[in-house]
Amino acid sequence: MTRLYNFCAGPAALPLPVLEQARDEITDWHGKGLSIMEMSHRSKEFVAVAAQAEQDLRDLLKIPANYKVLFMQGGAHSQFSMVPMNLLRGGKKADYIVTGQWSKKAVGEAKRYADVHIAASTEGNNFTSVPAQHELDLSADAAYVHYCPNETIGGVKFDYIPDVGDKVLVADYSSSILSEPIDVSKFGLIYAGAQKNIGPAGICVVIVREDLLGDTLPGTPTMFDYKVCADNDSMYNTPPTYSWYLAGLVFQWLKAQGGVEGIAVVNHRKAAKLYDYIDNSGFYANPVVKNNRSIMNVPFTLQDAALDKTFLAESEAAGLLNLAGHRSVGGMRASIYNAVSEEAVDALIAFMADFAKRHG
Amino acid sequence: MTRLYNFCAGPAALPLPVLEQARDEITDWHGKGLSIMEMSHRSKEFVAVAAQAEQDLRDLLKIPANYKVLFMQGGAHSQFSMVPMNLLRGGKKADYIVTGQWSKKAVGEAKRYADVHIAASTEGNNFTSVPAQHELDLSADAAYVHYCPNETIGGVKFDYIPDVGDKVLVADYSSSILSEPIDVSKFGLIYAGAQKNIGPAGICVVIVREDLLGDTLPGTPTMFDYKVCADNDSMYNTPPTYSWYLAGLVFQWLKAQGGVEGIAVVNHRKAAKLYDYIDNSGFYANPVVKNNRSIMNVPFTLQDAALDKTFLAESEAAGLLNLAGHRSVGGMRASIYNAVSEEAVDALIAFMADFAKRHG
Repeated sequence: MTRLYNFCAGPAALPLPVLEQARDEITDWHGKGLSIMEMSHRSKEFVAVAAQAEQDLRDLLKIPANYKVLFMQGGAHSQFSMVPMNLLRGGKKADYIVTGQWSKKAVGEAKRYADVHIAASTEGNNFTSVPAQHELDLSADAAYVHYCPNETIGGVKFDYIPDVGDKVLVADYSSSILSEPIDVSKFGLIYAGAQKNIGPAGICVVIVREDLLGDTLPGTPTMFDYKVCADNDSMYNTPPTYSWYLAGLVFQWLKAQGGVEGIAVVNHRKAAKLYDYIDNSGFYANPVVKNNRSIMNVPFTLQDAALDKTFLAESEAAGLLNLAGHRSVGGMRASIYNAVSEEAVDALIAFMADFAKRHG
Repeated sequence: MTRLYNFCAGPAALPLPVLEQARDEITDWHGKGLSIMEMSHRSKEFVAVAAQAEQDLRDLLKIPANYKVLFMQGGAHSQFSMVPMNLLRGGKKADYIVTGQWSKKAVGEAKRYADVHIAASTEGNNFTSVPAQHELDLSADAAYVHYCPNETIGGVKFDYIPDVGDKVLVADYSSSILSEPIDVSKFGLIYAGAQKNIGPAGICVVIVREDLLGDTLPGTPTMFDYKVCADNDSMYNTPPTYSWYLAGLVFQWLKAQGGVEGIAVVNHRKAAKLYDYIDNSGFYANPVVKNNRSIMNVPFTLQDAALDKTFLAESEAAGLLNLAGHRSVGGMRASIYNAVSEEAVDALIAFMADFAKRHG
């Protein structure tokens, strides 16, 4: 077995020890004679696995007791609907901050349910920065304010948590949850698709302040009602048990890395190395304002776009996988999530330097 | 490793060769240097896995070309909402046949969107039979007719496909899909949560006639729109890639068993053995009318319910797992899905006979 370096934006690299543990117990979990994925979600064994995963996530993010943690299905795209369906709470208006393709997609779906007010958009500068606090045009009557702290495609990150006064702040943390500490108490709701820093695709974590539950739009599917999910410990129906179990293994691995605080040090070091190299290379470029650069997703371009195909072919041959930028923007992108080691980033930089030398 | 006999109703037993193959390639899929769950859903590798799984399912069920096959999230519970949201198509009324807890739950959710007419209900006889064709009170103006061909909890199975004339027939096949051949052309839509005969929980198969797509209720979440899912080959958002892959392995395993036709012979033989034993035991009983007995879920009671706990403890100690009936009805239930071998059923019968001898 040769494990290569995987810079995929998602579904993304998972820690090898997690995959190895999953492998070792896939046919016989803890000597019980069956796989964890063959157990009832209501068995005492699976209920314990699920509860441990929740507790580990609570520990990692220091989630206050008045927040519910939900394990849902349907990814962030389903959250784009669930957020207005659950959080308008009799209101009509919602503020959205647009800093990239993902917050823009959230707007598109929210418009079907809410009077959406764009509090700020950086589309004018091609999503290469985030708006400053004083540039946020917040509505007096918005039921909530939605933003995306880390845009996966543009590689743009908020360097501050927006102050929205007494409004409910909602964040799509899909691509940066667990990469560094979050002050959960500043948020009404956080959601994150699993397939970057949590586990395999097919599960979505929602962290929601419990006083916000229980007032959905008419016609909201029962499966989209956060309160129903919370009241049933995310087991109103059969949850994606194996994905939940794998997420739990990732949480335990992360604890062993020193938790979110520990991994944040590594993440910042990995990102700083890569951006420093890019900025000083004279061959590669990243267009994002320095303070707003993502530590998880690093897009970059080559001096000459005609070399893109060669770069991708040679990097893949060198065991550096999935460096193509998102199909909507082109160029390159290295996603360096928690499970992407510093060694992988070092190997990438070494390859980039060699490539530049040969083609510059 | 000791694999025990698992009679869980769901998430249920999976074929050992499937788990072994998944184990062997979990850290390095086909020498690519990463797990299939670490690959982009848009990679050529995963797209090929997904397409192969769809083709194998089409082969197994002989799905006509004018049907779309969708791999969705949210289980059958989400289908309870999606069906009216997508299939009312300007109409108001829908007919539901109620033969157990699952079809009853479908009614509960459908009432939030449709004028539900109960075409028949067997609740009066405690769900121990299905209504005959002539007992179905079908509405002239129903947009569709919904039923559940196999009720997992009651162990009740339709021994015929309802004739609904030119109406759209919708079936929740969660617990009996792939257990025997289905004439898909009789249906407008079939759905099935994966966690019985398809794969692990977290994916739901929908087979829908393509002329029914594209007319949803206002406010239908985009993720609940079958047409959006179909137009994007079930990749409008990131699908549960690992569950999809595992489902594909199950389909390949099933083909190697002689397909649905082959497994149906074994399934009927397993069920016949178990019911014959129960009926002749003088100790156990199954209340369902003979022609309507499920070949997948076999509920049974003991002569004396005071022995239930002893039966469960002794059966578990004998390596026969998960024989408790559903928490809503009690008693026992042996779910004998495709992946539960004939050997497992033989072992169960031997245990039951021994238990009866000792306690009868």
